[in-house]
Amino acid sequence: MTSGTETQRPARITFDTSPDQYKHWKLEVDAPVARLTMAVQENEPHRPGYELKLNSYDLGVDIELRDAIERLRFEHPEVRAVVVTGGLDRVFCAGANIHMLSSSTHAFKVNFCKFTNETRLGIEDASEGSGQKFLAALNGTCAGGGYELALACDEILLIDDGNSAVSLPETPLLAVLPGTGGLTRLVDKRKVRRDLADIFCTTAEGVKGNRAKKWGLVDHVAPRSKFEEVVQKRAAELAASSPGKASEGITLTPLDRTIEEDSIVYPNVSVEIDREERVAKLTVRGPQGDQPTDADGIRQLGAAWWPIQAFRELDDALLHLRINEPEIGLVLLKTEGELDKVVAMDGVLEGLKDDWFVGEVRLLIGRVLRRLDLTAKSFFALLEPGSCFGGTLFEMAMAADRSYMLDDPDNPVELALTAMNAGAYQMSQGASRMETRYLGTPEKVGELLGDLRSYDPADAEDEGLVTVVADDIDYEEEVRIAIEERVSMSPDALTGMEANLRFPGAENCDSKIFGRLTAWQNWIFQRPNAVGEKGALTMYGKPERPVFDIRRT
Amino acid sequence: MTSGTETQRPARITFDTSPDQYKHWKLEVDAPVARLTMAVQENEPHRPGYELKLNSYDLGVDIELRDAIERLRFEHPEVRAVVVTGGLDRVFCAGANIHMLSSSTHAFKVNFCKFTNETRLGIEDASEGSGQKFLAALNGTCAGGGYELALACDEILLIDDGNSAVSLPETPLLAVLPGTGGLTRLVDKRKVRRDLADIFCTTAEGVKGNRAKKWGLVDHVAPRSKFEEVVQKRAAELAASSPGKASEGITLTPLDRTIEEDSIVYPNVSVEIDREERVAKLTVRGPQGDQPTDADGIRQLGAAWWPIQAFRELDDALLHLRINEPEIGLVLLKTEGELDKVVAMDGVLEGLKDDWFVGEVRLLIGRVLRRLDLTAKSFFALLEPGSCFGGTLFEMAMAADRSYMLDDPDNPVELALTAMNAGAYQMSQGASRMETRYLGTPEKVGELLGDLRSYDPADAEDEGLVTVVADDIDYEEEVRIAIEERVSMSPDALTGMEANLRFPGAENCDSKIFGRLTAWQNWIFQRPNAVGEKGALTMYGKPERPVFDIRRT
Repeated sequence: MTSGTETQRPARITFDTSPDQYKHWKLEVDAPVARLTMAVQENEPHRPGYELKLNSYDLGVDIELRDAIERLRFEHPEVRAVVVTGGLDRVFCAGANIHMLSSSTHAFKVNFCKFTNETRLGIEDASEGSGQKFLAALNGTCAGGGYELALACDEILLIDDGNSAVSLPETPLLAVLPGTGGLTRLVDKRKVRRDLADIFCTTAEGVKGNRAKKWGLVDHVAPRSKFEEVVQKRAAELAASSPGKASEGITLTPLDRTIEEDSIVYPNVSVEIDREERVAKLTVRGPQGDQPTDADGIRQLGAAWWPIQAFRELDDALLHLRINEPEIGLVLLKTEGELDKVVAMDGVLEGLKDDWFVGEVRLLIGRVLRRLDLTAKSFFALLEPGSCFGGTLFEMAMAADRSYMLDDPDNPVELALTAMNAGAYQMSQGASRMETRYLGTPEKVGELLGDLRSYDPADAEDEGLVTVVADDIDYEEEVRIAIEERVSMSPDALTGMEANLRFPGAENCDSKIFGRLTAWQNWIFQRPNAVGEKGALTMYGKPERPVFDIRRT
Repeated sequence: MTSGTETQRPARITFDTSPDQYKHWKLEVDAPVARLTMAVQENEPHRPGYELKLNSYDLGVDIELRDAIERLRFEHPEVRAVVVTGGLDRVFCAGANIHMLSSSTHAFKVNFCKFTNETRLGIEDASEGSGQKFLAALNGTCAGGGYELALACDEILLIDDGNSAVSLPETPLLAVLPGTGGLTRLVDKRKVRRDLADIFCTTAEGVKGNRAKKWGLVDHVAPRSKFEEVVQKRAAELAASSPGKASEGITLTPLDRTIEEDSIVYPNVSVEIDREERVAKLTVRGPQGDQPTDADGIRQLGAAWWPIQAFRELDDALLHLRINEPEIGLVLLKTEGELDKVVAMDGVLEGLKDDWFVGEVRLLIGRVLRRLDLTAKSFFALLEPGSCFGGTLFEMAMAADRSYMLDDPDNPVELALTAMNAGAYQMSQGASRMETRYLGTPEKVGELLGDLRSYDPADAEDEGLVTVVADDIDYEEEVRIAIEERVSMSPDALTGMEANLRFPGAENCDSKIFGRLTAWQNWIFQRPNAVGEKGALTMYGKPERPVFDIRRT
């Protein structure tokens, strides 16, 4: 089953920015409170063709938001509360830009939604993990994705001016879902009663004032005259509720990256693209040379410390593969370096976990690994001579759909478990990758983690730590065939299969956003009632009404 | 937003059958063991156009299976173990018929999968609720939906003849998912390690013999010479493990039903279709006259006892609405009768719950209510004068997306809670409808269930038992507008929205089948790589290979 849709690759999208380059957001720090103000420039869309009216957003706006949230955590640990508000008069945010959405390909819509979902989960992760509490200060209209952003915050304050409402008008106006977490957070996080949620989500004009508070859609309302006062009071209270961790941060320096036609190279990560095979080889290099073992030494390195540098690079590489390399179906995960050094680094990550910066780096690694879990490409981990799949890096192998380990006495390979496999990096459903791997034999988790050590191929196979162990005669052939078969299958079927097999066991609000909500939204994003010639998304803003196929499916 | 795709309604599909009419299954009872043998007649497809080769199945085959499972529970409570096996030589079941699938509309595919999913969940419900244990005796090849049927059984025995394998070839061969619970049951129920599951689900030829056992894909293997002996031994052991409940069942008599162009009328349930409005009115009549209060009296009535008769009728009506009335977007749920009699009936359902037949009826009601939860139509419950929304019938109001209650002193309406709201009828995610309704205020559940009583409109509104209470001046207008708005919206967006809002909170294997797995499958069922002109489902069996758009989404 081969194929051959010839497509011209669009211009590369990159995800780097910094506050001095922001076009749409303003970040002000007045510790312990910071303020993130959204004032989207209408005439600065991420690609030409639409205007970002009424604080509507596109990928460009969200790239800045993600940057701001990451910087608050690393550069401003003294910040304990973040006010997210709108910089336009009587408008908080009108949600994702509809003309952008209706003019986007299906694949772009899906990728855009996934990135915005991850960014909003990043807000919740900052609240839970870093103790930076978020207050959505809704200074005016808050619709669709605007309200979904508010839902990601710890508290929502709505101005009570007789006019400003919160709303999720996606279903009645656009025939799609509030898919950036909206439906899930409404009933799962805020626990709004499902029948009230039904009315809310089908009422385009939304709900205002005290009714919004009564239904649990917002936490506070305040008249215009008192709004700023209440914002400051609640922000101060949120900040006071979260004990300070540090007074000085580290600077997130720009990534050192060389992009060429078929490769991306960073100091610790490299991606090589084989377009013929439709395969990317992603290699993470382990720590080299002497590494600091105390907090001061680590702080001196800052963003150049191996764990943060390598995983920021990995994060960037994953985003690049997702959005710029749609034709790559399979990523081979490799590592290169000294296993001992990786294990030693994990010792530092575990030993200094109470240091705020080390703690932040651990949380960052967790987010990047979750980005890997949620990437719609197949991953095979290759454990080969010279690799260093220990602890933190072994999480990559467990995140992969399969792992292959070479068993060659002349070229020995080992992997290692460390304390960092014991729950430091949770998957989005709240379980560790060890717990997920051994769902059927949970006693194995305690057994393996109770005796942290390295494993040779036979040993790794016995304990079920890798999928396939093959000797030097078979390894190359077996991997080659597995690769060829994988890329020959339907990309869509693989995406759906992986989205199911990767997440066995319990679910939570986060995983339901990607499992239940996103899957339904993707279905709807394919339906003519939304995206057809007369569909509601297509017809939005035009004088005629959409025309629906009235049949229920 | 109106519409008007004019479509001719296809011939009505009905779901009634009985063992003497079976074409594809044979049901033999030799208590305490029963045997269900699949021997699909090639030339008896449910609609013309394809042949049911190699024990492949279609809706007609599954309608018989569902009937057999229901009859085993009610007519043969003496059965403690059920052997499910294949009646063809060296073939257990080749799965859902591919030519049937590829020639079906998207809507039919979705409805077919939902029904087969519910039937397989019925097997698990019979095992858990009725203690009838299922042994899948795989006498030969077991592919796709065939293996998904086996996965629904308590144990799987595979013949070890060097040839027969279990397989899920949907992804590699057809570019779709094993969507009838396959992916979910593999990793969630059987807890097969996710990387082994990845290999299994991408290997079209499947896995045989001891390897299948080692991976946890089957529980036992036996050579051909010993196969029947092991079947009988395991069936006897399963039967012995499940204590007997009764020696004699009741007969599931045919439903008394009158179908006309725009209505279906049963003794206790009626459906009236308003095609102009695209609304159905579904009315359940409460028990009338004197009702038995002891096990003997109930047993004498058998299938004519109100609870089983009414809910069998409701089940049939729901299936009819789903599959034969795609243009009906909204169902108004009404009840008619005396609230006191409904409450008294619930007293009997609770008081005699240890009686096997009453227990079976409770489980049946639970399945029917879950079918309602999972129906892709909007439901509004209308609590109006003459209604009798008490206990069991009030579950329908809680299952609805919204409920409206008239507050008119001249025409008083009441609802009632009973012990039957305290968990007797669980939703598919394992929570009661009360727990789901009050997810944000769980203390309310105990409070309300600790003081079982009836509620007038003001009281019901205060306690959050209904969505909207309106007085006689506003009620009619408010309901009319709500109905008009609802049917004006995109059917697809509403389906997706309801699938999210109806299931807040935790998930389990059952709910993940409908939430995560089904949603992804429906997306894939829309993708050109599966169903396009050159898609794998379309091209199956043709000489050319499918052509894929290689881009990953």
